[in-house]
Amino acid sequence: MKIGIVGLGLIGGSLGIDLRTQGHQILGVSRKETTCLIAVEKGVVDQASTDLKLLSQAEIIFVCTPIATIISTVKELIPYLNPNAVVTDVGSVKGAIAKPCSQLWSNFVGGHPMAGTSEQGIDAAVANLFEGAAYVFTPTAQTRATAVEKLTQIAQSLGANTYICSPEEHDRAVALISHLPVMISTSLIAACLGEEEVKVLELAQQLASSGFRDTSRVGGGNPELGLMMAQYNRLELLRSLYQYRHSLDGIIKIIEQENWENLEQILATNQQTRPQFLN
Amino acid sequence: MKIGIVGLGLIGGSLGIDLRTQGHQILGVSRKETTCLIAVEKGVVDQASTDLKLLSQAEIIFVCTPIATIISTVKELIPYLNPNAVVTDVGSVKGAIAKPCSQLWSNFVGGHPMAGTSEQGIDAAVANLFEGAAYVFTPTAQTRATAVEKLTQIAQSLGANTYICSPEEHDRAVALISHLPVMISTSLIAACLGEEEVKVLELAQQLASSGFRDTSRVGGGNPELGLMMAQYNRLELLRSLYQYRHSLDGIIKIIEQENWENLEQILATNQQTRPQFLN
Repeated sequence: MKIGIVGLGLIGGSLGIDLRTQGHQILGVSRKETTCLIAVEKGVVDQASTDLKLLSQAEIIFVCTPIATIISTVKELIPYLNPNAVVTDVGSVKGAIAKPCSQLWSNFVGGHPMAGTSEQGIDAAVANLFEGAAYVFTPTAQTRATAVEKLTQIAQSLGANTYICSPEEHDRAVALISHLPVMISTSLIAACLGEEEVKVLELAQQLASSGFRDTSRVGGGNPELGLMMAQYNRLELLRSLYQYRHSLDGIIKIIEQENWENLEQILATNQQTRPQFLN
Repeated sequence: MKIGIVGLGLIGGSLGIDLRTQGHQILGVSRKETTCLIAVEKGVVDQASTDLKLLSQAEIIFVCTPIATIISTVKELIPYLNPNAVVTDVGSVKGAIAKPCSQLWSNFVGGHPMAGTSEQGIDAAVANLFEGAAYVFTPTAQTRATAVEKLTQIAQSLGANTYICSPEEHDRAVALISHLPVMISTSLIAACLGEEEVKVLELAQQLASSGFRDTSRVGGGNPELGLMMAQYNRLELLRSLYQYRHSLDGIIKIIEQENWENLEQILATNQQTRPQFLN
C-alpha cells in the first residue's frame, strides 16, 4: 500500500520505519529539506519531499505535525488527495481536531497513538515504538466504517492495542489520566517553591526523595506540552480539575475534622482500585 | 560501645546489622519472643530479650517502635536507663515525639533516618540501608550538644547524610515533600474513580500510562502509613495542603482565563527548579 506521512518527527518517523519494514511504500513530507534527506538516508521513507503533491497517490495519510498545524495541513492536503484516501492525525487531543477535519474531508478519522519518548525529531524515530501501546481512533457519526477498519488494521499490525470512542470521550479520559496529573504535579512543585521559611525550603530540597520525585515528574516536564494540553483540551481539563479539587477538598475536610476512619477507608479504596488503571 | 535497640523491625534490625558489623555490642528488645530468636540467629543483635532491663548497660538506645508507642516506650525505659544514656527514636514525625520525650529524659534527641523499603519486619532488615540516605536529628533548646554529636557520628558511620533542625522545621519540610504528595496523589485516584460516565472511566483505565502511574504511586500505597502522617503531623500537613490548594487554584484560574503566557511561565519555572529537590 502507498502510505503518506506528513511531519517526519518522532511519531511520523517511527510510523515510517515500521510500515516500510512491512513492505508498504512510504511517502514522506516535511517542511524542511534536511529532514527529507535524513528520512530517506535513515530508511524511514521511500521518497520524501517538501511538497504535499507527493501524496497524490497515497491511500492512507498520517498527519503527524504538531497539534497547532493539523487542521491547516489537512486543508492544504485536500487539492492533492486521491478521492478515496483515508486521512488520520496523531494529535493528543481529538475534539478540537476530529470534528473540523471530518468536515474538511469525509474520510478523515482522528487518531491518537499513546506512545512516545522524551526525545523529539526524526533522529528520535525508532522501530516498534507502538508495540503494546494504546492507539485510539475517534470516528464521528459521518465517518465511513471502512476507513476506521483500515486504520485499525494498520495500528494492530504495529502491535498497538486499538480503542474506538468519540472525540469527547477520548478528551475526557485523557484529561483525567494524562493532562490532570500534569497540573496536579506542577502545583506541587509550585507549592513547595512557595515555602516562605528559608530553612524549611532548604530542608525540603535536601530531604525530598522518591515520593516527591515521582509525584512531581510530569509537572516538571516540557512546558510546551503542558501548555498545549491546557490550550487544546481546556474544557475537559477544567472539568477534571474541578473533579480533582472536589476530591482534595474532601481529604482536607476529613483531616481538619480528624475523621480518621473515613481517611483510612479512602486510602484503602485507592490502594485497592489503583491497579485497575495500570496495565 | 553498647548500643540498645527497642523494636527489631526493618529500621531497628538494619541498624543492628550495620552497627554490629562495626564492632559495637548490640542489645535488642522486642515484644515478641520469636523476633528475639530470629534477631540473634540472623546476627542482627548480640543479645535479645523481651525485657527492657537488658538495656541498663547501653550507652545509646534507638527506639524503633511504631510512632504510636514511642512515648510510652521511653517512659517504660526510664527506670532501667544508665544516667548518661542517650536515647533517640526513628519516627517520621518529630514535633509530637521530640518534645514530650525530651521532657521525660533530658538526653533524648529526636531522629529520623529517611530510609526504607516497601517491606516490614525483622526479615526485611538489610545491611547498608542508610548508605546515602538523609538522617535528621531534631534537638530542642534543652538537648546537650554531646548527645547530638554522638548520634551524628553514628549516623555518619552508617553512610547517612546528617541534618540538624528543630522538630517544627522537620515536620514542616517533611509535610511538603513527603506527606503532601501522598494526599495529592490519593486525591487523583479518587477523582478518576469518581468519573460518572462508565465509558470514560473504562477508557481512562485502559489508557492510563506512566504519567498516571507515577503521579498516583504514593497515593495508592499503604493506608496505615498515610493515616499515620495525617494523625501525627496533622497541623503541618494541613498547612501544606492549604499552600497546595492555593497553587492549584492559581493554575485553575489561569486556565479559566486562558492566560497562556502565565501558564507557560509557571510550567517553565517548575521545570527549571524541580532538580533542586532531587539529589
